[in-house]
Amino acid sequence: MKATILTIGDEILIGQIVDTNSAWIGSHLNDIGIDISEILSVNDSREGILSGLERACSIADLILVTGGLGPTKDDITKSVLAEFVDDELVFSDENFRLITKMFDKRNITITPAHKAQCFLPSKATLIENKMGTAPGMLLKKGAKTIISMPGVPYEMKYIMEHGVIPIFRDKSEEVIIHRTIRTAGMGESNISVRIEDIVSSLPPSVKIAYLPSLGNVRLRLTAKGAVRQILQQEIKIAEEKIVEKLHDLVYGYGLMQLEQAVGVVAKEAGVQLSFAESCTGGHIAHKITSVAGSSAYFQGGIVAYSNELKQQLLGVSAETIATHGAVSEQTVSEMLSGVLKLTKTDIGAAVSGIAGPTGGSPEKPVGTIWIAYGSLDQQKTVKLLLGKDRIKNIEYTTTVVLNMVRKFIMANK
Amino acid sequence: MKATILTIGDEILIGQIVDTNSAWIGSHLNDIGIDISEILSVNDSREGILSGLERACSIADLILVTGGLGPTKDDITKSVLAEFVDDELVFSDENFRLITKMFDKRNITITPAHKAQCFLPSKATLIENKMGTAPGMLLKKGAKTIISMPGVPYEMKYIMEHGVIPIFRDKSEEVIIHRTIRTAGMGESNISVRIEDIVSSLPPSVKIAYLPSLGNVRLRLTAKGAVRQILQQEIKIAEEKIVEKLHDLVYGYGLMQLEQAVGVVAKEAGVQLSFAESCTGGHIAHKITSVAGSSAYFQGGIVAYSNELKQQLLGVSAETIATHGAVSEQTVSEMLSGVLKLTKTDIGAAVSGIAGPTGGSPEKPVGTIWIAYGSLDQQKTVKLLLGKDRIKNIEYTTTVVLNMVRKFIMANK
Repeated sequence: MKATILTIGDEILIGQIVDTNSAWIGSHLNDIGIDISEILSVNDSREGILSGLERACSIADLILVTGGLGPTKDDITKSVLAEFVDDELVFSDENFRLITKMFDKRNITITPAHKAQCFLPSKATLIENKMGTAPGMLLKKGAKTIISMPGVPYEMKYIMEHGVIPIFRDKSEEVIIHRTIRTAGMGESNISVRIEDIVSSLPPSVKIAYLPSLGNVRLRLTAKGAVRQILQQEIKIAEEKIVEKLHDLVYGYGLMQLEQAVGVVAKEAGVQLSFAESCTGGHIAHKITSVAGSSAYFQGGIVAYSNELKQQLLGVSAETIATHGAVSEQTVSEMLSGVLKLTKTDIGAAVSGIAGPTGGSPEKPVGTIWIAYGSLDQQKTVKLLLGKDRIKNIEYTTTVVLNMVRKFIMANK
Repeated sequence: MKATILTIGDEILIGQIVDTNSAWIGSHLNDIGIDISEILSVNDSREGILSGLERACSIADLILVTGGLGPTKDDITKSVLAEFVDDELVFSDENFRLITKMFDKRNITITPAHKAQCFLPSKATLIENKMGTAPGMLLKKGAKTIISMPGVPYEMKYIMEHGVIPIFRDKSEEVIIHRTIRTAGMGESNISVRIEDIVSSLPPSVKIAYLPSLGNVRLRLTAKGAVRQILQQEIKIAEEKIVEKLHDLVYGYGLMQLEQAVGVVAKEAGVQLSFAESCTGGHIAHKITSVAGSSAYFQGGIVAYSNELKQQLLGVSAETIATHGAVSEQTVSEMLSGVLKLTKTDIGAAVSGIAGPTGGSPEKPVGTIWIAYGSLDQQKTVKLLLGKDRIKNIEYTTTVVLNMVRKFIMANK
């Protein structure tokens, strides 16, 4: 079965809000084997909505409409929907009862705006929305099914989970299985070369997609076919081959983030972490502490932005800074020793660099970043040569540091 | 001029990524007076892309295509684009030179996958992409203009800002002027009540939009009409009235971020800042140091996640923690004194809280956050009661802290 998502609202087109509903709907329909052919966003004019509905019905059997419903703006969407399916709006006693029941519980008075919301297409099958006053509606246009939902995310999700997904769960003929392998430490091109042989010999039912982001590449395997068990077996074999080939680049699966993966290995190894940051300015500590439960393996960190704090708190010698500079292998090495001693932790990392966009010199251009990582017994250092975009440099360096710390913990446990 | 945004990629349709590119493109085109008629996402098959291009060309003059380019997946998009404009792919010496130059600087070796990226439609005008290897391309299909960009957000943004927006900025017949007033410290509803009178007496050519995000509300004034000078005058009067009414909520205009505003007032007042963070875990320091030049007023910070580090580094007394707990007014107050003394700085803030999603108690539920801010002579404390979403709590708290520090500096200079 093919579906199209149609979102209605000027606020999406002018970029005032990011459309997160479509991704949610897409992933949940995909999970039950329904292919999304298109996502289409239109403005909330009669012409825009009609043209979107026509397009959607021309390429899909199921059309999920979100937006354009709600106390201040539902008139046009409902009347255009009624027009599109040759219907008219009538007062829905059923919806009025539902709203009354909900409002009584919360001691809210029904206003004329709420009553106006009860005018709905006469042939619509209502889908209950316990999160708000605009119900979901199922309409038919010939063989096509149109489902209309409000655009407020938690209302849409309630209607999808309780009313829509149960209807369509078992209607799909095709089985779709996804598996995502998450990697860090190598670019998309080089990964694709490394697993070339595996990819070219994948069974026709299994496809691979590369999804790169700063310092990370996710590999998404998708298997489509008729028999779940066969697909599960095929995707498992493909995954094992790829993971074997990429071994230490792989930090996790599915939705796992790199900072979560660091937490998993740190907990397993029973080690405590700390970080000394100059140019990343706290971003590494922020990533680590964005994981719930990180206090089990993270003690703290020092953001030593000035040279004085590098010396005073981390014990970097004035001579080192004078001779080699604050952005140097020697400085990050002393910063690392300093933070490990200060926080009495086992493993850590230290970073100093020129994040940009200005501040470079011929010997040390913008984007020069020195990293030290490891323990008091065993330190490693790395130099990065990045671009001039400050935020990108901070984020990319953070990813590199997290991945190196992860690999160091695994190699030394 | 009407534009359509066409995004290519299965990962959008199956909801693996949220399409943030379209909102960014939509708002930036809107700023220069270009209407977005539709946003359409299609899969990366030949049929999907062709059908999307046909749809887009049937309703708009300018088509912005994102996605489907990159070392491992650009073959189909480029060849379908070439097919659509009756062109063919040829090796682009120009792009090869650009990639070679970029890679030489960073000591990266060019692989066959990178070379393959240089096959581009022969009639394409290249738009430089300094952030990656796939260039932007401008193609013509009759009177329609098609711009193709990679889907990686920072690459797309670079191409838009440097190559695309400058071309189309002055092509609109209607004059559109925007002015954004940035506020922190009050919600959308309360702001709208406060400036009700001003808004209801705005001239018909001036509209206001409220753009709330965590702890911030941007007020965007838009004036549309024929004569630039009249609109400039109208928008200036409206802005002055609103700013007068909202006075200390306003931290800046246009693209200025709150962390930049903190930097501006700190530099003006000639003060040095520091932060002691527990539950925000480095996020405040990260925001401050995301601003280029922040070393002029930021010395450093302590991420004291464990109680031991709160005591050992910041001098919080064991008794305070035993009596009042780590999440208490007394603890943040001692943390603030500690970090100001340790870093020898003038003004700072300290935060300790229960970021969640678990870890609360009946007396201190998840979302309880204590903040201290000020100087050694003058400390203020605030308690926040937030929700259970960890990331939201960290980000909202950071905004509150930055805004309080900003106001403290202004009140004490």
